Amino acid sequence: MGISGRSDGGKRSALSALASYFGDALSTGDAVRQAHGHDESYHEAALPDAVLFARTRDDVVDAVRLCHEHRLPMIAYGTGTGLEGHVSAIHGGLSIDLSQMNQILRVSPEDMDCTIEAGVTRLQLNSLLRDTGLFFPIDPGVDASIGGMTATRASGTNAVRYGTMRENVIALTAVLADGRVIKTANRARKSAAGYDLTKLFVGSEGTLGIITDITLRLHGIPEAISSAICTFPTIAAAMETVITTIQMGIPVARVEFLDEVQVAACNRFSGLSLKEAPTLFFEFHGSQASVAEQAESVQMVALGAGGEDFDWATDPERRASLWRGRHDALYASKALRPGAVVWATDVCVPISRLGECLIKTKADIVASGLTAPIVGHVGDGNFHVTFVLDPERPDEFAIAKDVNSRMIERAIALEGTSTGEHGVGVGKIGYMNAEHGDAIDVMWQLKQALDPHHLLNPGKVLPPRDGFPQGVSYAE
Amino acid sequence: MGISGRSDGGKRSALSALASYFGDALSTGDAVRQAHGHDESYHEAALPDAVLFARTRDDVVDAVRLCHEHRLPMIAYGTGTGLEGHVSAIHGGLSIDLSQMNQILRVSPEDMDCTIEAGVTRLQLNSLLRDTGLFFPIDPGVDASIGGMTATRASGTNAVRYGTMRENVIALTAVLADGRVIKTANRARKSAAGYDLTKLFVGSEGTLGIITDITLRLHGIPEAISSAICTFPTIAAAMETVITTIQMGIPVARVEFLDEVQVAACNRFSGLSLKEAPTLFFEFHGSQASVAEQAESVQMVALGAGGEDFDWATDPERRASLWRGRHDALYASKALRPGAVVWATDVCVPISRLGECLIKTKADIVASGLTAPIVGHVGDGNFHVTFVLDPERPDEFAIAKDVNSRMIERAIALEGTSTGEHGVGVGKIGYMNAEHGDAIDVMWQLKQALDPHHLLNPGKVLPPRDGFPQGVSYAE
Repeated sequence: MGISGRSDGGKRSALSALASYFGDALSTGDAVRQAHGHDESYHEAALPDAVLFARTRDDVVDAVRLCHEHRLPMIAYGTGTGLEGHVSAIHGGLSIDLSQMNQILRVSPEDMDCTIEAGVTRLQLNSLLRDTGLFFPIDPGVDASIGGMTATRASGTNAVRYGTMRENVIALTAVLADGRVIKTANRARKSAAGYDLTKLFVGSEGTLGIITDITLRLHGIPEAISSAICTFPTIAAAMETVITTIQMGIPVARVEFLDEVQVAACNRFSGLSLKEAPTLFFEFHGSQASVAEQAESVQMVALGAGGEDFDWATDPERRASLWRGRHDALYASKALRPGAVVWATDVCVPISRLGECLIKTKADIVASGLTAPIVGHVGDGNFHVTFVLDPERPDEFAIAKDVNSRMIERAIALEGTSTGEHGVGVGKIGYMNAEHGDAIDVMWQLKQALDPHHLLNPGKVLPPRDGFPQGVSYAE
Repeated sequence: MGISGRSDGGKRSALSALASYFGDALSTGDAVRQAHGHDESYHEAALPDAVLFARTRDDVVDAVRLCHEHRLPMIAYGTGTGLEGHVSAIHGGLSIDLSQMNQILRVSPEDMDCTIEAGVTRLQLNSLLRDTGLFFPIDPGVDASIGGMTATRASGTNAVRYGTMRENVIALTAVLADGRVIKTANRARKSAAGYDLTKLFVGSEGTLGIITDITLRLHGIPEAISSAICTFPTIAAAMETVITTIQMGIPVARVEFLDEVQVAACNRFSGLSLKEAPTLFFEFHGSQASVAEQAESVQMVALGAGGEDFDWATDPERRASLWRGRHDALYASKALRPGAVVWATDVCVPISRLGECLIKTKADIVASGLTAPIVGHVGDGNFHVTFVLDPERPDEFAIAKDVNSRMIERAIALEGTSTGEHGVGVGKIGYMNAEHGDAIDVMWQLKQALDPHHLLNPGKVLPPRDGFPQGVSYAE
């Protein structure tokens, strides 16, 4: 990738040092490198030179020290379920796979928190928590690792009630570029003691340090859960319902928008028979009385905005089948065209701008001729477009690229962000200057202070910027 | 303070450049400098060389550029209501008073957010918001500026429900040490686009930049509010009630603990007739039905733990008089000894450790012979000790210092923090190495990246640390 510097011996000696230190835990086989060079996105794969299956934090420290000494790039790898090319090794180097670091280190039901290793996945965690009456609410859909979710500031369907990883990571331990280990905070629920390093590492996508363990906030499993679904004559009417619901302070746990294309896809894929119109899915958590009150309030709001067929499901089976449909939306989209690949992208805007952003984006999709269902965590102002593309048709990708660019520029112009929850990776890096302006210089200054050789996940998050050296030398 | 370097002409020429640029907006009068050299704490005053009353962000930029050029320290000043010596000018320099930057720049009821200048105070903001049905919940007691509350990561009585400044600042604009201006984020409720600069500046106490305007999250004024008060035979019984309440997910808006010394002080000061025992004050926000449900649930929990005289006040007048008593707790403490000064300190621990931390601290206070009521935002694990001291008795200060140190060491040993909400300033700086270990090096690296000459509020937050230069030269 145009990076040059050290002699060829550099990389070879780095890999041989790693191999002799780690033995079988290091793999340079093609299949393993292939599996670690890409995520679930359409972004081009870029293979690491080797993959380390780390078993302990000490493994990570030792690997980082060796890589630091030899100037070999390092890419933290969780489950590979990212959507913006976060794990592709665009400058080669070592992929550090954390999936074997999957111990739950402690759970405190009294404090409603736990500490886990980075490779624990969210389903694994929730399965272990079941007997405590607690759960970890952040749900990006796939069964991602908590380390990856932390590194990408993940959120998902119930962030409107429970927040994102930003609000639910209490502290973390990270291995810095030179092998130093820091713990960003203790377990207190709040602190005014110094800079908030926790939040600096949440969302840094492995570019400031490799996160090895994480203290998480947990929540009580609600006494009662109910769902509702409602269709609307227009996107605007659905958005009016969302805004009023939030403004009234109704503590909805989930409020999801599906456009009529997405509803049709879900009907077909999941055997549902929903009306194919702009639709909102709601979920309510609380006591029996509170859940009933929330559903009644939302029903009133929805009907006032022109909603139809408000259907309130307390029956767990019916609720599960509705939400299974929503959860499988990505697969449903993919199934719209046999052999298709999907390109999932997201933006987030202030909720008052959501209607405008959605309507204009939808019009642009229709004009483009592409198939691209829309689904959104609209309580946060966040929505996704899933382009369903023929892998043999580069012209479709080119059109999708333009629609995506216009959507992102629209979101930024509406005081929003280029990504609400997927992260930057390589996919959104081209929009970072437009979104952040001079604040990018500050991000670069922080990066250079902590990783002056740009060894941690190079080429991600931070765009080229005047005044910041791009020609760092890696082992070649 | 032992800092030397430039010749005497440096500071004089800096002040003369500021005076000729700003005219009457710059003051070097003794009274003004006196007023800006200390906060509401017992910490020793240290006077700035001059005070600038900034009227616009451009004033701040121009002042910072001049100070940067002349290597003159800069201290942002809001209302001077801090408690750990945050504004004392221990290396001299320019105090930048932001109180005249008090415009509400925009309010969006639909998005439930607003953007304000840093000098707006919380009461000013809430008074202007009243007609919108929204409020800004963070309530540290005094009428602090929002800029100061942001810079110190303030919280207060209802953080248990609404979070602290950390959760309620959406974005901010800061002037960096060299005069560059950055906006840390847009208005989207969530974003995965790059490093979280907002949270880095929240709580940085003016050491990374001067915050000039802030975008805040607002909340709907609840339909119904009610309060309850309950006394307990022991601190442990009160703590058991708090833990169970939080675990059950009852969304209390406030849960405040007062020890029997504090209750006696409040009785005397505010004309109340509360039983002088460990006491919890609760406040509930929500719909009429939800508020009633919350109060009933908490009553059951409290009685189960041995609570007595659970008194549930929906009558606004009675509720107001109870909470006025709580709000005036600091003045009530002060009034315990005529002519006394108060030294307020705070720590925060995981809630499961709160009983132990409170009971041991209380025993230490009793053994010390000092008068020191305890009051706490116990839903967060946060409590305050208010030493009530005779200003003529240095021996009392020495004893208080020891009790305070032991309390902080105890809190850190219990996986807590040296300050839950007051901040570091100069008062807690001596505990930062013990609390953060090697993470302090990272804080120093960030500081040096953004403020290499240590011009922004020098001597605050970051403790002396091997490997980081302390002998920075200021204009003399």
